[in-house]
Amino acid sequence: MNIASEDDILGLVGRFFPVDHPSLLLGRGDDCAVLKRNGPLAVTTDIFAEDTHFRRRYFTPFDIGFKAAAVNVSDVGASGASPSGLSIGLTLTGNEDEAWLSGFCEGMKAICDRFSLALSGGDLTKSSLVSVCVTAWGELPEALPRGLRRGAAREGDVIFLAGSAGLARLGLTRLEAARTTEEVEQVKKHWPKACTAHLRPEPLAFDGASLARFAVEHDAVDRIGLMDVSDGLARDLPRLLASRKTGLGADIVLPEEVLDGEILRHAEETGVDAPAFAFDGGEDYALVGTCPEDLWPALSQTLESPCRVLGRVRKGALTLNGKRPASAGFDHFSH
Amino acid sequence: MNIASEDDILGLVGRFFPVDHPSLLLGRGDDCAVLKRNGPLAVTTDIFAEDTHFRRRYFTPFDIGFKAAAVNVSDVGASGASPSGLSIGLTLTGNEDEAWLSGFCEGMKAICDRFSLALSGGDLTKSSLVSVCVTAWGELPEALPRGLRRGAAREGDVIFLAGSAGLARLGLTRLEAARTTEEVEQVKKHWPKACTAHLRPEPLAFDGASLARFAVEHDAVDRIGLMDVSDGLARDLPRLLASRKTGLGADIVLPEEVLDGEILRHAEETGVDAPAFAFDGGEDYALVGTCPEDLWPALSQTLESPCRVLGRVRKGALTLNGKRPASAGFDHFSH
Repeated sequence: MNIASEDDILGLVGRFFPVDHPSLLLGRGDDCAVLKRNGPLAVTTDIFAEDTHFRRRYFTPFDIGFKAAAVNVSDVGASGASPSGLSIGLTLTGNEDEAWLSGFCEGMKAICDRFSLALSGGDLTKSSLVSVCVTAWGELPEALPRGLRRGAAREGDVIFLAGSAGLARLGLTRLEAARTTEEVEQVKKHWPKACTAHLRPEPLAFDGASLARFAVEHDAVDRIGLMDVSDGLARDLPRLLASRKTGLGADIVLPEEVLDGEILRHAEETGVDAPAFAFDGGEDYALVGTCPEDLWPALSQTLESPCRVLGRVRKGALTLNGKRPASAGFDHFSH
Repeated sequence: MNIASEDDILGLVGRFFPVDHPSLLLGRGDDCAVLKRNGPLAVTTDIFAEDTHFRRRYFTPFDIGFKAAAVNVSDVGASGASPSGLSIGLTLTGNEDEAWLSGFCEGMKAICDRFSLALSGGDLTKSSLVSVCVTAWGELPEALPRGLRRGAAREGDVIFLAGSAGLARLGLTRLEAARTTEEVEQVKKHWPKACTAHLRPEPLAFDGASLARFAVEHDAVDRIGLMDVSDGLARDLPRLLASRKTGLGADIVLPEEVLDGEILRHAEETGVDAPAFAFDGGEDYALVGTCPEDLWPALSQTLESPCRVLGRVRKGALTLNGKRPASAGFDHFSH
């Protein structure tokens, strides 16, 4: 079945996403939706665009819907907020059929269901490429009115990572090299964790909200720093430490033993340095944070995701395993 | 000067939009911005995309920034909320220079200044066409927790229009026909009100918020219906009346005398029926609403914009000046 009109598309969306939701006072269908407010509201916007952030050659419609929502939920969680809703600006080409749109909605719904999110509304338009602009929000505790932020680090603080580093970059690298449907299937078979990390990243938003509660309970709202790793540790760590302003850095230790086996296999096959590859890699949507040394044992117990210490904050430049890192990460406008 | 990187672009944006704002607990620069909590929050998302909603041939960068913000602020106002902020997902081609970006920011800032809006954040990406996906929000009175909505009309209610109808469509029609820069300038000179209506529509959000206060004060929160006219009266009136569900319609009277002189001149030149042209025309961002007859005299006094009665709600189909309208409005996916 072909999708003939906006009304058809909205009808299909309605089969996946209920209009009423506990976090909404008014759902879709009017000029605006209305959100209940239970505290300060953390808001973020991220675009997920064809041929910039994904390719239809190896992203299924499910993957596109899933990841467009996931990257935004990750930002909400990294502020310490509990995600509660999102809206989407969806650009389609007009060639998407019902199966495509259903797959897209199912992928987005998987994230909405996991985090009990309302889809409050959005807009549809037509262009030559598919693009999904999501705005997502979540509630912060009253005692944490600005959320968990970057720039909270002081000398001696622990730098911790919750989640993994490098897998999503490996998935991107391998999937980009696959030119045919068969090659894509082979890559998905041989690099399953890397492909899943790139196609369907799991936002660690429950951990973000746990850290927010922990900060409030331990009277440490200005002493715990947090962000999600969207552009890679090499680029995001200086942001977490506000290095340009503070002059803070760290000796990051990322030994091969803590890296995923698929990354080590890739390094062996290609000759790249595995830790450097993982350190530069973006789009893992892990959480990276800082906290006072004495809070670390208790804090690490509150996290559900695997976590580890990357290093301690000190004055000076960032090093990785004893050396200055080569790369400065990724910029869509200068590559 | 060419814009080389995301950081350059963000730096430029920062020259126009302060990070701190009275409606924000935390401004741009972290994973999320944080909004202050002041009541139920009305939220809307609208995409403003090149070659679908605007053409660079006749939209200046200022016009693009202005209208992308204006159409969203119009939705917020049409729900009865006082607009307080927005975020943008901005897709650029990479060829925009500093002058272009400054013009864009100035246009958006004109709307932000008029309504005291915070730009809470956003995202940047690159594609072959410029596109602006805006999510905007505003605060509703606690006594109006679902806003002013469609579907509030009952038989005998007054249908009113605040603002004008048809000018934006005339601007679109004339500007689309202009093929060269010189022709565009001629059109802007000969059809100034129509061009301004299409390029820089004025959202009537102060009137929307006034109507919300009026509804609360007159204990009429479920008896005043309101929406903005984005797709034209022909398409939007049945939505306001929820005609499909209620079977409600009206005999709309739109005499030539109330239409703008530019519309009458266009009708004379081309032979189209002026009221039908205005009735079908979209993107005027006027407000159309319904209220009980006895409230109309007082309600009309609260509106700053020129307003008039279009008709009274009754059972049955919609007519325009005694005849069934020919068109059913515009759909991006079926044209």
